[in-house]
Amino acid sequence: MGSTNAAGWARYLINFSYIGSPFRGSQRQVTRRIANLDDPSTVQGRLEMGLKRLRPVNNPIVFMASRTDAGVHALNTTCHVDLQSCNNMIFEPQNITLCLNRYFTKEELPIRVLSTKLVLNDFHCKKSAISRTYLYRVILLKYDEDITTTLLRFLPIEEFKRCHFYGAKTIDIDLMRESAKLFEGVHDFRTFKSKSNDEPKSTVKEIERIDIIEKRMTDIGISADFSWPRNALQNVDSNTYTFLDIYFKGKGFLYKQVRRCGAAILAAGTGIVDLKDIRCMLQVPSVNSWNPRIRTLPPHGLYLCNIEY
Amino acid sequence: MGSTNAAGWARYLINFSYIGSPFRGSQRQVTRRIANLDDPSTVQGRLEMGLKRLRPVNNPIVFMASRTDAGVHALNTTCHVDLQSCNNMIFEPQNITLCLNRYFTKEELPIRVLSTKLVLNDFHCKKSAISRTYLYRVILLKYDEDITTTLLRFLPIEEFKRCHFYGAKTIDIDLMRESAKLFEGVHDFRTFKSKSNDEPKSTVKEIERIDIIEKRMTDIGISADFSWPRNALQNVDSNTYTFLDIYFKGKGFLYKQVRRCGAAILAAGTGIVDLKDIRCMLQVPSVNSWNPRIRTLPPHGLYLCNIEY
Repeated sequence: MGSTNAAGWARYLINFSYIGSPFRGSQRQVTRRIANLDDPSTVQGRLEMGLKRLRPVNNPIVFMASRTDAGVHALNTTCHVDLQSCNNMIFEPQNITLCLNRYFTKEELPIRVLSTKLVLNDFHCKKSAISRTYLYRVILLKYDEDITTTLLRFLPIEEFKRCHFYGAKTIDIDLMRESAKLFEGVHDFRTFKSKSNDEPKSTVKEIERIDIIEKRMTDIGISADFSWPRNALQNVDSNTYTFLDIYFKGKGFLYKQVRRCGAAILAAGTGIVDLKDIRCMLQVPSVNSWNPRIRTLPPHGLYLCNIEY
Repeated sequence: MGSTNAAGWARYLINFSYIGSPFRGSQRQVTRRIANLDDPSTVQGRLEMGLKRLRPVNNPIVFMASRTDAGVHALNTTCHVDLQSCNNMIFEPQNITLCLNRYFTKEELPIRVLSTKLVLNDFHCKKSAISRTYLYRVILLKYDEDITTTLLRFLPIEEFKRCHFYGAKTIDIDLMRESAKLFEGVHDFRTFKSKSNDEPKSTVKEIERIDIIEKRMTDIGISADFSWPRNALQNVDSNTYTFLDIYFKGKGFLYKQVRRCGAAILAAGTGIVDLKDIRCMLQVPSVNSWNPRIRTLPPHGLYLCNIEY
């Protein structure tokens, strides 16, 4: 199926964004053998349901460029799909964008199509990609006493499920940058991979670069003015919080690799582990090398930013 | 019930934030006559469920300072509650904050307590308030052609359910400010009130001031860098979008008054109505004076920012 040569058949590349919070994940979880069975709790399932509104002759099956877990967001990701129209004309790409966005708006779903393009029938959104950029967003909360104080501190509530709040006694951003450098380049990332159903052929991957950008409190959206209202402000020291954006760029990543590398970098910056511990985890690639003091970062701080072709 | 004189009884003022998206509203919707019946789909119901974890002798009934509709958020609002401990000691305010935040964190609910304070037993979070500040957040999308183009345009997805996207051909911020001036001061706001179950004694209210703050695209959180990834950027002109924060300050507001006044101000700025139309709506206070070309703004752009005492 899916030849652009046959009349009415064409392959489309769709760029889209989503907030992952209400979905079980990006990837369809109902087996494909049961044709036509909708999977409304996944991003892929919703794209397919939206495409059916165009009334194509075929049953649309969406190929996702990247799998994201439940709760992970995407600012610009891609998928491709083959569609056959009922006449000999192909679907207008702009109409596909319109039709999908109308469906997502009506259903109040946090998915939006950015653009739709016609592509050749040998284009594959996953295989043709040359690199991917991920962002992990953290709000670091400095505290002097025990961990419970983070529960007494004010959190910018509008970042709920969009950012990870992380409490620590000390934070050394330079040390985080130093530990990030250890991950750059080609490594066997077996230690940083979580178990998944389909095992990859190789756990050797290249991380092109990791950038850590520190933001001042006032740089963050409405947090600057209005998450810090008068009543709350009296007990809040603006130096208590550090907003960090950690960018990961590479051709491809293993299952949970970004969340586990990010966790190790944060742990280095907060003194839970040191650079030697991280070097060990990289030098002896094994599930047993994972340092148990490091906890994998939660999904809701992770954003797939872009897929480069 | 609720005397601070009896042993173990005390009244507490709780400052808290929430994201309204998953709730049916802030106010308990299950009748109070059925004691102990939980109402988990409202903010008030969740506060009461959380307070029960402290094992007070009485059944905690929370008084909310402000009612917000389903989907409306609060950055800093208040409630008060009377609690009786099982011994003669009163509950430590800090422990109430801790207990509630632990409960909200565990249940993954977008509610966070900012602080808890002991207050006198004649303090009433609603009656003692001297003013309230609301914020309405809009992202204005300028377009030249028909309305469908907004569905083809990129939207900063992380603002989904946190901001209102509004499409318009022309936007005149100065005209919006001029129309906002018409609302300031004491007026009969009957035209701007929506029907509700309990009718207020008077529809005469005072709006102290309305401020309209225009934000540049780069001032907005991660939108600046990452809602505008390379693939999307090629078709996006940064002048297409205007981020507007509209602040309303007043002693109290009628049901849906902020969303309807905001809608009128936006309609004036985008040429749907003119200043004369708004003057008419204020001068003849009646449900029949509402201009049908103006559509009440959706709840998810509205934030209760602060309650001043």
